[in-house]
Amino acid sequence: MTEQSHVRPGEVTLALPDSFDAGVYFIGRIRTPFKSRAECPKNTAQSEAIGYVELDARFAAGLEDLGLYSHIFLLYWMDQARRDLIQQLPAHLTVPRGTFALRSPVRPNPIALAAVELLGIAGTTLTVRNVDCIDGTPLLDIKPYFASIDSIPNARRPDRA
Amino acid sequence: MTEQSHVRPGEVTLALPDSFDAGVYFIGRIRTPFKSRAECPKNTAQSEAIGYVELDARFAAGLEDLGLYSHIFLLYWMDQARRDLIQQLPAHLTVPRGTFALRSPVRPNPIALAAVELLGIAGTTLTVRNVDCIDGTPLLDIKPYFASIDSIPNARRPDRA
Repeated sequence: MTEQSHVRPGEVTLALPDSFDAGVYFIGRIRTPFKSRAECPKNTAQSEAIGYVELDARFAAGLEDLGLYSHIFLLYWMDQARRDLIQQLPAHLTVPRGTFALRSPVRPNPIALAAVELLGIAGTTLTVRNVDCIDGTPLLDIKPYFASIDSIPNARRPDRA
Repeated sequence: MTEQSHVRPGEVTLALPDSFDAGVYFIGRIRTPFKSRAECPKNTAQSEAIGYVELDARFAAGLEDLGLYSHIFLLYWMDQARRDLIQQLPAHLTVPRGTFALRSPVRPNPIALAAVELLGIAGTTLTVRNVDCIDGTPLLDIKPYFASIDSIPNARRPDRA
């Protein structure tokens, strides 16, 4: 169910490579209250929603000690996003911006990244706060959040971004 | 050149799924001073090294406006890492820890994540500070760093991590 239809004026497509260079496994699913992209909050800062990360049973041993951390990164696969837009015009901008200067799900490798609060772990289900993705989104990875390397409070961004 | 040989006592392997669920493109390469994993710093906080992100020409338009940001996330593919260890024993720990509680390159989907300072862009080459990966590592994605959602200064972690 790829959104091939929506290319806005000013947006730029590209020819993707002929073949993939590596493969990923979907290791679980993220359960959220959002049943469509339209329902999703713009990003995690605008979401207090509780979600559940359902990790496939074969990976259960990988959760050992994860509960020692207050926050985690989720990497997930935006499987409903097209991959061939290299400049995009989000609703909050007036001119197109490069895909790599946006957090849009539409990108050559539709891997999304979200820092979320880890509220609890029961079996292979993680309860997290601040989810922003569509219910059922495939999970690629879970990483502990390290403030020492991941937190850059003074990082600058443009006023309209 | 996968490191299949090194499984330490206490480490746990798993049977990976039979097939991949999706494919990724290598969209460029990261050039660093580090020619082997042994030469790499433990993480970006321990590296002041300057590196160069060489984006493939076909994706050039995706960099438009990226220079407005002071910091970016790089997502890259740890192509020398095995994928089948689900508990690991890093040198700084005494008992194995789950793969998802570690930032080790060894994981089912060997996607690494680094927040780096963006020093400049010339054509399709980005100059960045704080790189920690092996020279030539394949690039998967570039994202702008948003302090509002990505910076969690008070995130907790265990003393030994």
